[in-house]
Amino acid sequence: MAQSSPVPAASDGGLCEEFAVPSQVEEVRRLMAEFAERHDAGGRRVVLITSGGTKVPLESRTVRFLDNFSSGRRGASSAEYFLDSGYAVIYLHRHRSLYPYTRLYTGVNLLDSLRLEPGEGEGGSGRVLVDQAELQNVAAVLKRYQAVKTAGLLLPVEFNTLSEYLHLLKAAAQALNSIGSNAMFYLAAAVSDFYIPASEMPEHKIQSSNGPLQISMKMVPKMLKPLVKDWAPQAFVISFKLETDPSILLERARRALDIYNHQVVVANVLDTLRGYVVIVTKTTQHELTLTDDDVQKGIEIEEKIVSNLSAAHTEFMNR
Amino acid sequence: MAQSSPVPAASDGGLCEEFAVPSQVEEVRRLMAEFAERHDAGGRRVVLITSGGTKVPLESRTVRFLDNFSSGRRGASSAEYFLDSGYAVIYLHRHRSLYPYTRLYTGVNLLDSLRLEPGEGEGGSGRVLVDQAELQNVAAVLKRYQAVKTAGLLLPVEFNTLSEYLHLLKAAAQALNSIGSNAMFYLAAAVSDFYIPASEMPEHKIQSSNGPLQISMKMVPKMLKPLVKDWAPQAFVISFKLETDPSILLERARRALDIYNHQVVVANVLDTLRGYVVIVTKTTQHELTLTDDDVQKGIEIEEKIVSNLSAAHTEFMNR
Repeated sequence: MAQSSPVPAASDGGLCEEFAVPSQVEEVRRLMAEFAERHDAGGRRVVLITSGGTKVPLESRTVRFLDNFSSGRRGASSAEYFLDSGYAVIYLHRHRSLYPYTRLYTGVNLLDSLRLEPGEGEGGSGRVLVDQAELQNVAAVLKRYQAVKTAGLLLPVEFNTLSEYLHLLKAAAQALNSIGSNAMFYLAAAVSDFYIPASEMPEHKIQSSNGPLQISMKMVPKMLKPLVKDWAPQAFVISFKLETDPSILLERARRALDIYNHQVVVANVLDTLRGYVVIVTKTTQHELTLTDDDVQKGIEIEEKIVSNLSAAHTEFMNR
Repeated sequence: MAQSSPVPAASDGGLCEEFAVPSQVEEVRRLMAEFAERHDAGGRRVVLITSGGTKVPLESRTVRFLDNFSSGRRGASSAEYFLDSGYAVIYLHRHRSLYPYTRLYTGVNLLDSLRLEPGEGEGGSGRVLVDQAELQNVAAVLKRYQAVKTAGLLLPVEFNTLSEYLHLLKAAAQALNSIGSNAMFYLAAAVSDFYIPASEMPEHKIQSSNGPLQISMKMVPKMLKPLVKDWAPQAFVISFKLETDPSILLERARRALDIYNHQVVVANVLDTLRGYVVIVTKTTQHELTLTDDDVQKGIEIEEKIVSNLSAAHTEFMNR
């Protein structure tokens, strides 16, 4: 297991003063380091995928919070394609956001998909069967899921609040540093840009009888900078940029590459999230589009994104 | 089917100017009215349960929103006890919050609970079975769920944003007015007190490069007042009051009864949500507590709440 050396104050991204350290962070760091080193030793690359939104509390005893639009669909489906491409996957995801493989059955009410097996006597056989018209392809999906689980290729880690996300991402970066350029960071989570410092938060539920609400939020420290510079400087790092206004998208993506000095930005627009992205590097930009024909065949854009990025990762490692 | 007469401007709770009408509202109103009248004719009472939090968008093309702590657990479990007590239930719930019966298996990953049935040949029998150690009591729960479904006793209606909730609640109140005191409103949803008017909302995603965020929110119109006064004046109406500070709880509950003139407030404190509530009326207050012994036996506080309120509903109808 890698010893995680103490991090110099300069590179902690301002985390310690403002955001409480979650209790499980040391245990999770150890698990991630073991996972990365085991698969690295077995000749496998490791990708850390972040997925889902973050909750930003408005009160210390939290009733209200700020959230981001994100089901975790992109992260969950990408995890499957990375597993298909031979990666081991650490899936750092928001509690209850979509999960690899099970995401395929999210819209289905569990009990609508089950049947009591008929049999002798009043109660039937007592066995409960899946109706495979409700959960399509479930036998094949279950086989893939069980194979991944048995091989220990998927390590799930959960977060809920912004604080938990920030500390766990830092721990992950430190844990994966020991495998150098064999590590990829695929930062697909929709992380809040704003938060309320603990010191400025009311303890109790804000009363509506006090009249209209004024909220004043500070900017969340950018983790990408210390991640690339200090925590995992040899890794292949991909961030995501979501905009609603297509006219500013590419400029924002290029600016992020300049500021953070990482390898790739996957740029996308809210309205066309599932059908169009641009893979932007310092010197190139490459559009990926899902055609009507692709959609007919059940192809997802994440398959194309992952195929593009795993090839780029190979090139990066060979340099 | 009841004709829904046009609502006078004075009693629309300020909805029309500020909150867009969701497209499905007329169709849902018709379904709810038919449901209520069918069960009323069959001698059954009808309860409308609201459940889950509400999303309040910060941008018109929404990336960020304000949300409330609420899993929908109280509404989902209460629905089951109301069904057990002979009510027909309209379940007006936030999309993806907990659902009656299926809520019992929320923590379980679907694919972890399934097994491929062994059999001849490489692929086994091709059937998929539920592992009943993972989904406890699933055969019994499935039987209850299917019986409720077959008898048409549960009408689910979904909302997502605050706007949708407000319009659907109004439609529900108008739809249930025709069955008079046979209708109960059990308003357990955690509804935002604050929102940003469409006219003051930026169209595009707020840029973090603009610096810290100032949000200014208006107060959401209180629907309880027109509901009790104009939309369903004969119904038995229960609201919920959640506080984090126990010292102000009862005073707030009494104040709500004075202002809105409805029948019951179920008052509860965030820290003891699952073990303690006070049922407050204009003249009484009654504490309900879950003992350690109750917890051992798997009794839930919602069973006690529903038993108390359905008795109070009977008294109310007989007056």
